[in-house]
Amino acid sequence: MAESLEELGRIGADAAGGVTRLAWTPELFAAYDWAAARMRALGLDVETDPAGNLIGRWQAGSGSAVLAGSHLDTVPSGGRFDGALGVVAAIHAVEALRREGFEPSRPLWIAAFMDEEGARFGAALFGSRAFAGEDVTPLGDRADAAGTTLRAAMAAAGHDLDRVSEARRIDEVGAYLELHVEQGPVLESEGVDVGAVTAIVGLRGYRVRLRGQANHAGTTPMRLRRDAFAGAARVALALREEARRRDGVTANVGRISVEPGGANVVPGLADFTVDVRAATAGGIGELERLVEETVDKVAAEEGLEAEVEQTFALEPLELDEGLVGTVEAAAAAEGATVRRMPSGAGHDAMVIGRDVPAAMLFVPSRGGVSHSPGEYSYPAQVELGTRVLAGSLRRALGPDLVGR
Amino acid sequence: MAESLEELGRIGADAAGGVTRLAWTPELFAAYDWAAARMRALGLDVETDPAGNLIGRWQAGSGSAVLAGSHLDTVPSGGRFDGALGVVAAIHAVEALRREGFEPSRPLWIAAFMDEEGARFGAALFGSRAFAGEDVTPLGDRADAAGTTLRAAMAAAGHDLDRVSEARRIDEVGAYLELHVEQGPVLESEGVDVGAVTAIVGLRGYRVRLRGQANHAGTTPMRLRRDAFAGAARVALALREEARRRDGVTANVGRISVEPGGANVVPGLADFTVDVRAATAGGIGELERLVEETVDKVAAEEGLEAEVEQTFALEPLELDEGLVGTVEAAAAAEGATVRRMPSGAGHDAMVIGRDVPAAMLFVPSRGGVSHSPGEYSYPAQVELGTRVLAGSLRRALGPDLVGR
Repeated sequence: MAESLEELGRIGADAAGGVTRLAWTPELFAAYDWAAARMRALGLDVETDPAGNLIGRWQAGSGSAVLAGSHLDTVPSGGRFDGALGVVAAIHAVEALRREGFEPSRPLWIAAFMDEEGARFGAALFGSRAFAGEDVTPLGDRADAAGTTLRAAMAAAGHDLDRVSEARRIDEVGAYLELHVEQGPVLESEGVDVGAVTAIVGLRGYRVRLRGQANHAGTTPMRLRRDAFAGAARVALALREEARRRDGVTANVGRISVEPGGANVVPGLADFTVDVRAATAGGIGELERLVEETVDKVAAEEGLEAEVEQTFALEPLELDEGLVGTVEAAAAAEGATVRRMPSGAGHDAMVIGRDVPAAMLFVPSRGGVSHSPGEYSYPAQVELGTRVLAGSLRRALGPDLVGR
Repeated sequence: MAESLEELGRIGADAAGGVTRLAWTPELFAAYDWAAARMRALGLDVETDPAGNLIGRWQAGSGSAVLAGSHLDTVPSGGRFDGALGVVAAIHAVEALRREGFEPSRPLWIAAFMDEEGARFGAALFGSRAFAGEDVTPLGDRADAAGTTLRAAMAAAGHDLDRVSEARRIDEVGAYLELHVEQGPVLESEGVDVGAVTAIVGLRGYRVRLRGQANHAGTTPMRLRRDAFAGAARVALALREEARRRDGVTANVGRISVEPGGANVVPGLADFTVDVRAATAGGIGELERLVEETVDKVAAEEGLEAEVEQTFALEPLELDEGLVGTVEAAAAAEGATVRRMPSGAGHDAMVIGRDVPAAMLFVPSRGGVSHSPGEYSYPAQVELGTRVLAGSLRRALGPDLVGR
């Protein structure tokens, strides 16, 4: 595993120790070549589908396929584990199954989905969405920083956006399993080997503007101020308290600017973002109400005018209880400690999992660091996670798979 | 009064309705010409001293002079009242005393001090500091935005920085009175005609940097975050609470930036200003301790590293109790309502008042607005304030002046 990750990590490596393999670039296709060669060596039928997904098929048994996958694209100067680990682990898991002479009762596919990150065209999850049958052709006009459209980038790679609907193969899939680095600190901080992901959190993004009155910081008594920054501070802390009270809920104010911005001027405007996440539809609905109510309450008490604009919405996805149990059983069989947890970040599983039973396995991320050259997972944990993936696949490939 | 302010306001007027008369510019000297002509018409001896202060002298009686003044320079696109009102009111007060045949028992001087604002060279209170005998020659190397040094700007106006010590005349002054717009909302909000200023607040300015850990806003649970913005929010609100509990104390966070600044990233750095003010030396000392303690406490509780840098310090000045009483008595005699209050902004009185008994009179500022074209005080209030200044001068010019 460590050697495979090392080899793959050299493709698109930069001087800073990061890896850059953006969608539809030669670097990404070089990574495809590496993975395709490994899959062909295991006897899989390999193709790159019209949506740019690299797919390897072990056409054993009968019925719907069990799909194991993730992605090989990265953010700019990203890490060597995010996405890549899931593809490499699937390859190594199949290798282990082959080595032990395992006879699947149904097909086993491996997928590296195109452009999970969306770093180049803002078209995240492009490949898995096309695989699931979503019409992604409207994304074709999006351009990268150099002005190249997605449609043109696809054409340059020998792909025709107008044929992307042919990538739909979701109906042949009966279950999806994705191994991924946690990208968070929970497993490491608790000393747990494997996370059995129960849900992928939904997200609401907001831009909030609070308007008060810019005034002289010396001549305006405290009780006569309408301080927009004080309002923003109260909103941020109140939402943090609400999030802390709830399980698996997060709230973040990650960006703020105040105007006019003089040290001796009471801020008349605070313009900030709010990012709230929850693992259930009910939780997301509650957060939507909380954001509105908190901003309204603080604005009323502080004498501010509030403008709340929802800029982003992503629905949560609950993963398949049966498959989550399968992951737990496989972990137990490998002697790995395991905990159920939600995923706070989005993954291909949130697309594929809408249509077929899906589960995810997390392995610990050192320091919770991701999307950075510092992203790292220890070899022993990566190998243990891969064995748990193999065990999960072994169980899922049996005749009693839940679903179609 | 309204007509005088109107005439003076045309000198340096811009299209936006503001007035720009920076230190040592033709616009400021044009305003000097206007004021000098008015003073000469009242029989005063007028000169511009080596520090660029315009001074008119009514050499009546004997002993130390009573000085009434303010400044004629402005901030860029400032208002028509800040500073100008004090000079115009002094001229009109002398005119009223002349008209009634008042015989001063001591000299009465009017001063328009050079560069109170410090907007061009960052050399605020230049003229009053030189008048009080402070060595201002080290400021000569400061340059304006065009690269012109203060020394060169003085030379171009016929002034020699090396002779600026000759501007020292503080020893001939026995009392100082300054009428000014409040530049705050207290008088207007309480419907009071005149503020009798008891002290000019001292100030401590800080730059605070809180460092936590930048993390993914979705994958990092609330309890594992080290959120630098949350720390900044707590510091700002805690200092606001402390200021609210104290009389005449203010606290402001006017500028903040967070890094890395992504909506979905927990802030790893918050870099912000703190401005705290109090009217007494004891109050300032308490605020210094409060800022340090509050930042330390919040940093410890939030797991942040804190850096607190004091960037600015200005000592408070308590004005002369006897002269404050004189202003109150004059207000009562004119039927004006009056309240004691501190000044939250700096003025020439905070320099002159270090050496001689001083008091200030505030008239209401509409909406508390200042340093802006929207700065305004109603004519009736300006005239009432001017009558109270005349009454205060009449009292101060009597034989029983406190002090030398």
